[in-house]
Amino acid sequence: MVDYPAIFAAAIDDLKQEGRYRHFADIRRIRGRFPRAVLHEGGRRREITVWCSNDYLGMGQHPALVAAMHEAIDEAGTGSGGTRNISGTTHYHVELEAELADLHGKDAALLFNSGYLCNQATLSTLGHLLPGCVILSDELNHASMIEGIRHGRCAKQVWRHNDLVDLETRLKALPADQPKVIAFESVYSMDGDIAPIAEICALAKRYGALTYLDEVHAVGLYGARGGGIAERDGIAGEVDIIEGTLAKAFGLMGGYIAAERATVDAIRSYAPGFIFTTSVAPALAAGALASVRHLKASNAERERHQERAATLKRRLAARGLPVVHTPSHIVPVMVGDPVRCKQLTDQLLDAFDIYVQPINYPTVPRGTERIRLTPSPLHDDGEMDRLVDALDTLWNSLSLARAA
Amino acid sequence: MVDYPAIFAAAIDDLKQEGRYRHFADIRRIRGRFPRAVLHEGGRRREITVWCSNDYLGMGQHPALVAAMHEAIDEAGTGSGGTRNISGTTHYHVELEAELADLHGKDAALLFNSGYLCNQATLSTLGHLLPGCVILSDELNHASMIEGIRHGRCAKQVWRHNDLVDLETRLKALPADQPKVIAFESVYSMDGDIAPIAEICALAKRYGALTYLDEVHAVGLYGARGGGIAERDGIAGEVDIIEGTLAKAFGLMGGYIAAERATVDAIRSYAPGFIFTTSVAPALAAGALASVRHLKASNAERERHQERAATLKRRLAARGLPVVHTPSHIVPVMVGDPVRCKQLTDQLLDAFDIYVQPINYPTVPRGTERIRLTPSPLHDDGEMDRLVDALDTLWNSLSLARAA
Repeated sequence: MVDYPAIFAAAIDDLKQEGRYRHFADIRRIRGRFPRAVLHEGGRRREITVWCSNDYLGMGQHPALVAAMHEAIDEAGTGSGGTRNISGTTHYHVELEAELADLHGKDAALLFNSGYLCNQATLSTLGHLLPGCVILSDELNHASMIEGIRHGRCAKQVWRHNDLVDLETRLKALPADQPKVIAFESVYSMDGDIAPIAEICALAKRYGALTYLDEVHAVGLYGARGGGIAERDGIAGEVDIIEGTLAKAFGLMGGYIAAERATVDAIRSYAPGFIFTTSVAPALAAGALASVRHLKASNAERERHQERAATLKRRLAARGLPVVHTPSHIVPVMVGDPVRCKQLTDQLLDAFDIYVQPINYPTVPRGTERIRLTPSPLHDDGEMDRLVDALDTLWNSLSLARAA
Repeated sequence: MVDYPAIFAAAIDDLKQEGRYRHFADIRRIRGRFPRAVLHEGGRRREITVWCSNDYLGMGQHPALVAAMHEAIDEAGTGSGGTRNISGTTHYHVELEAELADLHGKDAALLFNSGYLCNQATLSTLGHLLPGCVILSDELNHASMIEGIRHGRCAKQVWRHNDLVDLETRLKALPADQPKVIAFESVYSMDGDIAPIAEICALAKRYGALTYLDEVHAVGLYGARGGGIAERDGIAGEVDIIEGTLAKAFGLMGGYIAAERATVDAIRSYAPGFIFTTSVAPALAAGALASVRHLKASNAERERHQERAATLKRRLAARGLPVVHTPSHIVPVMVGDPVRCKQLTDQLLDAFDIYVQPINYPTVPRGTERIRLTPSPLHDDGEMDRLVDALDTLWNSLSLARAA
């Protein structure tokens, strides 16, 4: 007979041996005082500063979002009560989808319970709907995109990261009448680099491919209205399907696509991960609506965000810390070993009350373990000084490699 | 070149031809007055009664849940700001998982953003972790389980619905040392029948299989503390993995598993659909915590719910309407044709202000189209009279088949 507990225990031990077993920090952010949070350790509590949140702009404590959520709970209750088709479409959902479509200059949008589910469901459904389809996937695409493509039961080709020559070579070799989807991201979340969207769209047009662009680390953050890198670059109209999230810059949770009406309608009608899921709670849709509307009109958060990221990179570099000089708001500092990466972040938390999560495989390739700092408009100079000093101290005591 | 819009438009046309294109009713339930809701039609609004919500107990307007959500928003803000591993584990999540583990008498529990994602991620990860695994799946399992099994890239066998003889025949034919997972549900949501859990667990023990039980239509509703059918039948301790939802009886959103510690830890550590998803908003976890605690202590909602379901079935049968006499709270009334099913529900809404969604393929097999009524403790005798009268009238005017 099979010893199931032993198999599961062995799988866990493998992770511990590799130094990449994950301990979740038990925290609670303090509304009104982001990036400060309370850390729970056993029965003990203490205050810390969060430096690794994807609530990039601190919208998670914005009064407009808080008020919109309160109001929706009082008006409509806590949950939606069903899938979108079976009593779970509220007027908040309808308004939010219209707002998201407008944000990206598209006909329609479709809301999912998470960005993961959105990528997974949309890409796999494209694979099913387009006969004989091949999906051309950037090699650094997010796990959710890879899962979606795998489940699409269609052909797949992986092209070298942001490499237009490799992409064109592959497109050229495919029959003109074969459906092709180019799947890629705008801002890559772990390296912070940015795709050449205009050039990729030009190739797509030349070879008759559909473009699927994941902008989860860009929506709300780039473009005059927060429409992402495609908006910033003035080419949102050339991208067929833009995927975004409400869980990062917009401060809530959920994912979405925006596209031409028939495309959205087909995904809406055929994607199991959409059809069979209880819709997001009305208060989440209402909060997201307030957030998208606010960030369409206000550039202050985006400007301060970019300034904070640039300042942090400059300060880290001035100390000789191996920060990656990304063209985006993402600030990776390389460690290159899972065990020491964990030691570093443990000591940051224990000795300096600074919370940064180690980034290990499978989130990044082995050997490229890192910390990933996310300065927000709410991280002031004092917080930044304390972080840079702490890192400088620990870089010495742990004998980590400095920048070349 | 490929005409993508034409392919998507054709896929939509197929659904329209078959009469199963889905129009989402745009509604908003009125907190404090469930099951009443406001229907938005273009610019017009009118009040309706919802008869198809999966908020089975009306917990979505319960004062304890509403208060818990408000409080969490004020304390911690709107979104969690990250995946569970990267700043997204709040103390609400930790407390909720402990509460859910206790509900099912298990060591540990793990929260997902939806029941769909939970089934999909857990079953596929079991398929990856157990070498040479075969998953034995009840033929009426939910789409999310089927997706999870498919993505597990392991062997799969489909056994006849609730058929112990077929299941045993298949188990007996498999090598003793091959890992086996029996995946099934307790209450099947569309037919309302209930699995013989004790007998299935006995077979699992005899043949060395792991049991995975989906209780999404039972948690909160059955058992002295709302632990589901397994609790009611006194055999929760025999089930290896219990899967539940917070989106139905508990009135919110999200899914979870409860199991032995190493099992939960393995899924937590290996399931991409868990690892790479922003965690549920703090307010949702806080609301769910309040809901689970309330329904552990209170039987009043469960008793009234069962009485309402029994009363509705009796009243429908008394008029000769083809209600299915289920052993659960689910009340299907058979129509058997997608177009007339839609006509029926359109007329219920237009002429009687009663909202019931038609249930068509792929949710149920073709030819078994139906309406599915979900009486809650909040549907009073007057609402029930209006529903039964309306159905009786429409059954005549649409010449639908009466009960044999």
